[in-house]
Amino acid sequence: MDEWIEIFRFIGKQVLDQIRGIVGTSKAKRRLGKGEFGDNTVFIDKLAEDIVIDALCNTKRSCSILTEEKGWVRLGDRFPLIIVDPIDGSLNAKRGIPYYALSIGLAEGDSVNDLVCGYVVNLANGDEFWALRGKGAFFNGRRIKNTASEANVVAVEGIKRESSGDEILKIARSFYRVRQNGSTALDMCYTATGGFDAFLHLDDARVIDYAAGKVILEEAGGGLFEWLEDKPFGCGISTQKTRRFIGVGNRDVLKVVIERLG
Amino acid sequence: MDEWIEIFRFIGKQVLDQIRGIVGTSKAKRRLGKGEFGDNTVFIDKLAEDIVIDALCNTKRSCSILTEEKGWVRLGDRFPLIIVDPIDGSLNAKRGIPYYALSIGLAEGDSVNDLVCGYVVNLANGDEFWALRGKGAFFNGRRIKNTASEANVVAVEGIKRESSGDEILKIARSFYRVRQNGSTALDMCYTATGGFDAFLHLDDARVIDYAAGKVILEEAGGGLFEWLEDKPFGCGISTQKTRRFIGVGNRDVLKVVIERLG
Repeated sequence: MDEWIEIFRFIGKQVLDQIRGIVGTSKAKRRLGKGEFGDNTVFIDKLAEDIVIDALCNTKRSCSILTEEKGWVRLGDRFPLIIVDPIDGSLNAKRGIPYYALSIGLAEGDSVNDLVCGYVVNLANGDEFWALRGKGAFFNGRRIKNTASEANVVAVEGIKRESSGDEILKIARSFYRVRQNGSTALDMCYTATGGFDAFLHLDDARVIDYAAGKVILEEAGGGLFEWLEDKPFGCGISTQKTRRFIGVGNRDVLKVVIERLG
Repeated sequence: MDEWIEIFRFIGKQVLDQIRGIVGTSKAKRRLGKGEFGDNTVFIDKLAEDIVIDALCNTKRSCSILTEEKGWVRLGDRFPLIIVDPIDGSLNAKRGIPYYALSIGLAEGDSVNDLVCGYVVNLANGDEFWALRGKGAFFNGRRIKNTASEANVVAVEGIKRESSGDEILKIARSFYRVRQNGSTALDMCYTATGGFDAFLHLDDARVIDYAAGKVILEEAGGGLFEWLEDKPFGCGISTQKTRRFIGVGNRDVLKVVIERLG
């Protein structure tokens, strides 16, 4: 399994190199249609996706891929299933806001509980995160030890014009600082490291966004939990949006968040 | 005046090099007391401030400095006055969230209208921004041309637990996406480049946070404006917090923001 991390890191370097110079330009934003998850695909998403798929083909390893634009791609057996968001935080990448990432998760079965490996690279500064089930989570090669016990600085994804006003205010009133950065994968990774104390995914989540982050948070000592419940988040792997969730790098923080928002 | 930009860029590189490896560690967060602007100073702020002051001393140029921890420092004449936030986005730097900057403005008089030069470096990825009055604004050496005319993605600073609920909801309902990133200087710079369409500084602002960004936004084709007024923001330079403001990279966007929030 360690070899997969090396493969993903190699792919991460290629994507980093090739999108530099395109981020924030009009070329980056050129629309190419809708992807399998229903969102608009733009040039920069497609460029990154093609690099990932080509690189996985070149490994000659038997696997399947689930990715944002192309959906399901079979390169041999059904498993391992490699779940890719080529650019998580596309809106930021299109605009040159420095917070977007490549996210790759690896599952050995059909459920998010079968995710065993996660890799995320911050494409705006090269920060790397990875985790292997049972072997720990790593940030730029150093093992992550999350010691958070409070919920002061919380990252939130999915506050929109149509969100519930009560919920928006409850969140604003419950924490010292709320951050809205625009990349689920990175918010989860910087929650694993203790940058954020918790991550709230307010609207229905897509597996490509959280697959890698889930393993990274679990191996840091936390995980993903059902919205305001002390119950691990779980569902099948598909192109359907599922439910909202809370991500923490340390289980102690989960209780605090549920208490504040419950 | 161009020489000052070169001096500030030289200082930026020193700060970048020396804080790397400290960001996000417990050393970074060590408290050292209160600075002149009333906020807690931590190790990483002090380290960056010392680098800036030492480097300015070494230039042997006559100037004054206004900076976060030490307040007013006289190195000869009262002007030019160099206004420094050694780490804008300290909370992010302490926690290892990659969005914090060194911000340096230069004024030839006592008012923010006398600001003629601004330099900001994103200490999380090396992005550089600078501007000279009448000579344009630059992002990584390339001239910024801001063509924004809509207000879709808006950065906000200063939403706190105690903020007005009506205002929080009005903001959430008025734009496609709201970002809360935690660094005024960077939010202003990425508004200048068109990353954000506008920047709302909801609580009372400190001159060290916006001095450089003001010149950069003006030279991109926008500027700072009084809250919900089509009137340039102005005040004396001091350690007192002043008023809230709106920053835009293009004046066309100001009308849209006032219309939506007014």
